[in-house]
Amino acid sequence: MSTQTYRIGILGASGYTGADLIRILSGHPAIEISLLVGGRSAGRPLAEVFPHLGHLPLPDLISLDEVEWPGIDLDLIFCALPHAASQEVVMGLMHATGHSLLDELLIERREDLVAATQKDIRIIDLSADFRLDDPAVYEEWYGRPHQAVALQRGAIYGLPEFHRDALRSASLVACPGCYPTAALLALLPLLEAAAIGPDEIIIDAKSGVTGAGRSLKESMLFCEISEAMHPYGLGRHRHMPEMEQEMAKAAGRPVGLSFTPHLVPMNRGELETIYVRLARGRSADDLRTILAERYADEPFVRVAEPGVVPATRHVRGSNQCLINVFEDRIAGRAIIVSVIDNLVKGSSGQAVQAMNLMLGLPETTGLMQAPLFP
Amino acid sequence: MSTQTYRIGILGASGYTGADLIRILSGHPAIEISLLVGGRSAGRPLAEVFPHLGHLPLPDLISLDEVEWPGIDLDLIFCALPHAASQEVVMGLMHATGHSLLDELLIERREDLVAATQKDIRIIDLSADFRLDDPAVYEEWYGRPHQAVALQRGAIYGLPEFHRDALRSASLVACPGCYPTAALLALLPLLEAAAIGPDEIIIDAKSGVTGAGRSLKESMLFCEISEAMHPYGLGRHRHMPEMEQEMAKAAGRPVGLSFTPHLVPMNRGELETIYVRLARGRSADDLRTILAERYADEPFVRVAEPGVVPATRHVRGSNQCLINVFEDRIAGRAIIVSVIDNLVKGSSGQAVQAMNLMLGLPETTGLMQAPLFP
Amino acid sequence: MSTQTYRIGILGASGYTGADLIRILSGHPAIEISLLVGGRSAGRPLAEVFPHLGHLPLPDLISLDEVEWPGIDLDLIFCALPHAASQEVVMGLMHATGHSLLDELLIERREDLVAATQKDIRIIDLSADFRLDDPAVYEEWYGRPHQAVALQRGAIYGLPEFHRDALRSASLVACPGCYPTAALLALLPLLEAAAIGPDEIIIDAKSGVTGAGRSLKESMLFCEISEAMHPYGLGRHRHMPEMEQEMAKAAGRPVGLSFTPHLVPMNRGELETIYVRLARGRSADDLRTILAERYADEPFVRVAEPGVVPATRHVRGSNQCLINVFEDRIAGRAIIVSVIDNLVKGSSGQAVQAMNLMLGLPETTGLMQAPLFP
Amino acid sequence: MSTQTYRIGILGASGYTGADLIRILSGHPAIEISLLVGGRSAGRPLAEVFPHLGHLPLPDLISLDEVEWPGIDLDLIFCALPHAASQEVVMGLMHATGHSLLDELLIERREDLVAATQKDIRIIDLSADFRLDDPAVYEEWYGRPHQAVALQRGAIYGLPEFHRDALRSASLVACPGCYPTAALLALLPLLEAAAIGPDEIIIDAKSGVTGAGRSLKESMLFCEISEAMHPYGLGRHRHMPEMEQEMAKAAGRPVGLSFTPHLVPMNRGELETIYVRLARGRSADDLRTILAERYADEPFVRVAEPGVVPATRHVRGSNQCLINVFEDRIAGRAIIVSVIDNLVKGSSGQAVQAMNLMLGLPETTGLMQAPLFP
Repeated sequence: MSTQTYRIGILGASGYTGADLIRILSGHPAIEISLLVGGRSAGRPLAEVFPHLGHLPLPDLISLDEVEWPGIDLDLIFCALPHAASQEVVMGLMHATGHSLLDELLIERREDLVAATQKDIRIIDLSADFRLDDPAVYEEWYGRPHQAVALQRGAIYGLPEFHRDALRSASLVACPGCYPTAALLALLPLLEAAAIGPDEIIIDAKSGVTGAGRSLKESMLFCEISEAMHPYGLGRHRHMPEMEQEMAKAAGRPVGLSFTPHLVPMNRGELETIYVRLARGRSADDLRTILAERYADEPFVRVAEPGVVPATRHVRGSNQCLINVFEDRIAGRAIIVSVIDNLVKGSSGQAVQAMNLMLGLPETTGLMQAPLFP
Repeated sequence: MSTQTYRIGILGASGYTGADLIRILSGHPAIEISLLVGGRSAGRPLAEVFPHLGHLPLPDLISLDEVEWPGIDLDLIFCALPHAASQEVVMGLMHATGHSLLDELLIERREDLVAATQKDIRIIDLSADFRLDDPAVYEEWYGRPHQAVALQRGAIYGLPEFHRDALRSASLVACPGCYPTAALLALLPLLEAAAIGPDEIIIDAKSGVTGAGRSLKESMLFCEISEAMHPYGLGRHRHMPEMEQEMAKAAGRPVGLSFTPHLVPMNRGELETIYVRLARGRSADDLRTILAERYADEPFVRVAEPGVVPATRHVRGSNQCLINVFEDRIAGRAIIVSVIDNLVKGSSGQAVQAMNLMLGLPETTGLMQAPLFP
Repeated sequence: MSTQTYRIGILGASGYTGADLIRILSGHPAIEISLLVGGRSAGRPLAEVFPHLGHLPLPDLISLDEVEWPGIDLDLIFCALPHAASQEVVMGLMHATGHSLLDELLIERREDLVAATQKDIRIIDLSADFRLDDPAVYEEWYGRPHQAVALQRGAIYGLPEFHRDALRSASLVACPGCYPTAALLALLPLLEAAAIGPDEIIIDAKSGVTGAGRSLKESMLFCEISEAMHPYGLGRHRHMPEMEQEMAKAAGRPVGLSFTPHLVPMNRGELETIYVRLARGRSADDLRTILAERYADEPFVRVAEPGVVPATRHVRGSNQCLINVFEDRIAGRAIIVSVIDNLVKGSSGQAVQAMNLMLGLPETTGLMQAPLFP
Repeated sequence: MSTQTYRIGILGASGYTGADLIRILSGHPAIEISLLVGGRSAGRPLAEVFPHLGHLPLPDLISLDEVEWPGIDLDLIFCALPHAASQEVVMGLMHATGHSLLDELLIERREDLVAATQKDIRIIDLSADFRLDDPAVYEEWYGRPHQAVALQRGAIYGLPEFHRDALRSASLVACPGCYPTAALLALLPLLEAAAIGPDEIIIDAKSGVTGAGRSLKESMLFCEISEAMHPYGLGRHRHMPEMEQEMAKAAGRPVGLSFTPHLVPMNRGELETIYVRLARGRSADDLRTILAERYADEPFVRVAEPGVVPATRHVRGSNQCLINVFEDRIAGRAIIVSVIDNLVKGSSGQAVQAMNLMLGLPETTGLMQAPLFP
């Protein structure tokens, strides 16, 4: 086992994603958490903001302004800030630390620029800011022009099961959204194999409430959510273009995607029920076989035994994704079910998985916690 | 207001559906609960089985064997027994009370037989036993031949919004299933208007746990369900043929239906997200308008304001159904959202609504309780 | 049944207490809701703020400034505003409407002043502002002098089971707090009978989250509360002096009270486990008998059968209070369990019960809804 | 790090306690799970019984009859069976494996017998069977004579913070109950220091539902528990004598204990609110200081900062116990709050902590997972 310890920082440490990063990294043998930045909580000990982490030796939360970037001794930064804020902060800290990605000439030729230099701080961004290749699509969905287009071109989409090699040398990684993670793991191998029709893919997603973060909204109060459920973002959720982008790459053509998320009264867990049309000659069993073969050696993606229905409780608190395929009653169609813990494989765990690759560590380090059930 | 009081009986009074019938009827000014039959709970006061109803003056639970059917003074019976059991019990009590529906000659001509005679006890069956017109379909889905085929032909499907007139003179009513209720109220007007394609209707349903009844199964334990969710009955849930039957009548042709229910950690509430293809020239707005016009005068079905997303908390504990229609991201498609309380409009409330019609009472009597939120 | 309809107003209609007032009153045959005042929601239809009430014909929410008090045609106002705000608003509207309670001379002699004149708008205040007899106690617990001391002297403490007669002629009623309601109903008869020791009464209370209202606090977010619980206000909760005041009156001497509330992950329901020392010669059974006799004719307070443990689900959504007494393992001690729905008997239902008395209506009108279980 | 691997077995592996043992041990670097015994689930792969553990390489579940005890190669067995069953199974396996504890002569002299020989399989029993020193007390509370009195005398009470040395050489350990664990960690140091009165200690406990295990009871169905709470076992819960026994040892005299557990709608977590009388001259702060000093070097017990209220979410999924002390409103009294995860520090985690001591491993091995919040 490597004896080296890497120093990491977390921007946005007072949110749920930040807390789960700390939880996971606290059990990682090669990591030292050296910097915690939290906006409204700056100046407070983390134990006050997150008493459940109070037994850990951790630095106090500071504000972004207090960070002295030049010469800072960090190997990697997780940026768990809201979109739009994220791109500016990443741009700023790259300038301040003289990051090699900023060399505009290099940025012209993508294949060169992703190889970070030794001195570069690796950055894993957990917002949506660096996930969309096309700045026009970003602007369409986020209502403002992207402020760091060059960086966006240099970012690697951090789904390790599909971009493992690129991640090993990446210096800027866009961690996928939670909904896209569950959907892409289920669909990319099937689109690559042309085993399903790309035109009317219907994703009905259900998510626990942590997906909405820790921000103060009336709709997130306990009494508004408990003993109830509802869909949201009907026809216009911002995770759509991200899915379409990656699915189109796999299909080799644009896809037609309908995506409807629902809020379910639970803290963690995300389940997607995906309705697809089979390609001619394909059966639901074929889809299951394609996925089972594709993920046979993956430590974090499992295809359930035939007939076993994935449930969010099967992956709670873990970095696992569990998938299965079922015959639909309508001939020529199949139903795919994919579950993750939205805060782990859908966010912080996946980010740590990418980190392991970027730092040359075994990919599963610190990520093998079994699910917490009940 | 009518001064007459009707005497009713409930078979299966120790289940959740039975309890909700008692809850609703306890506030009904024209009803006296005269008979409570409960299997494993027979011999116990209802206050012991359901302490929340302990303040009500109610008869003790007795077993089915203890009921003296001949000459029994009841106007109407709710039969809230499991399927298969139900058909035998209904047949038996009809024999014992000399019910006119049993006249086989009459049963040949449907239009005659549904008019109950004065002396007939009206029966509302809440199981699946009398919902399917075709005995072959029943046998296919329930794994055994129907034991009361003649009666099945005489039963009225108790969705008041679509069978109001027939219900007024019905003597045997099959109360619709909870999932079919939410789906049919959303889809029947659209199929009748040929405003949507009938071939690939995808219903993704989410239900609270009361839908599974009060039976002892490991999968229904609190710890198996809380903080988790999962689909079930993939591709083969028994509410499918019931939906197909009623939708085919509305469409004038068979429909292609995909239906996937999910179990959500809440007690009450059912939400269906329905993915449909628009008929040529139709828009999502058109669908909304068709529904709004169809239900303008209905006391229990409401189409929400444009853009307002129905949530189960909007109808909890009430007999309301709330529906809305949204444009899909895929051109030519729409998303319909329909919510009910599965125990009320999806079961006991709908049964009381049918009862009111059968007894000649105003349809809303005892059913106007506002939803309980939070 | 009276054919008269009373016009009522609700101040603070956009909170949970306001919503439950509307829910209950919507089924009340003698009430017309004529005024809805909501602070941050003023100008919006109620259906937008509370979609679950969208099927009811109700006035839009307006702001307090928009109300034209002089000459307003209202019989009774529910004031569901935060403490401190409440006393000022009540004082203001009394001035504006020429309320007879304001006559300072009358206020000197309490027995006279509570008889409202015909033209007076009756007021039921649901905040803590008029519950404490002693202005010094108010100032100690609320950190500021009371601004309407004269009115406070004229207010009747609205626990109908103990102040029924006074309520019939009251013009200003202070609706008890939820925790005091459950505690006082359990303890007042025992203190009056000197059946328990008054010195070390320990109340361990557990409440659903609606008790905290609809205000935006991080600690009230779903993810902070679900799958967790904790005590709060240890040793200093503001419902203490209210309990002490009423209990001292019943005991005829000061009482020693320890009160610790806990937040439980459910929407509604309040359960108090009360640990008392028996007076010499008294048994737990004696306590139960005293309570059972005291409440034999009360429509909303029930003593459970011996050995039956009250649970919050037994009263959810109803105006019922359910109590029982158990022997403690320590000789000479007993344990009392008292449950209510904090929003109904603990707030809005109790307020409507007081309203019925004040308006000369049968006390149970509109309040006989059976509990909603599950 | 030790390179030795210990082989362990789990009896009762299909319950929640068994599942949590497997979860924790799957991350333990020195353990190999070699035997899984599950009653009604025997013959099935563990992945079927607990799909959330399906990614782990584990033996299939077998029945107790199938175990070939003589010569079995196991270092330690966790016995997670129901009480009564447990004592017979432990006795049987000791006979079958020739365990040295069975030597009746040795058992006469307690100080000798706890030193296990090399060949002995260490046993950690998670039931109540070996917790009570006095067979008469066992019989009083469990309604039958103890069947293995000699073994009971040889068992060590497995609360590591108070019996660390004895555990190092123990061959049979009785893992404490969940309620006693939270109570004893809070109270033993205070009783030892005579800082609180021993006569009327009132423990109001609240527990998540996993405490009731995975057995099929109507009262454990989701719909009976969700959105509700209630006390149980009033005045007669079986964890009482266990607490009294250990507290009496610490106090040097019998204690007077009132203990009332409540069921709360959450999966995991246990919170005890303990009401105590201060010894003359002692303050709440003194109690806090005594506890803080006593646990300063303990890895799994923490005293929170002054004023910070422990919540179950602070310890969920971890082996932590969090305690704090508050002044009561009644002079001379204090309130202590103690929280644990009932399945971890209250059961499986504590058992693994004892195992580490028994096997000579660092006590924290495999137990440092941070709490899972949200």
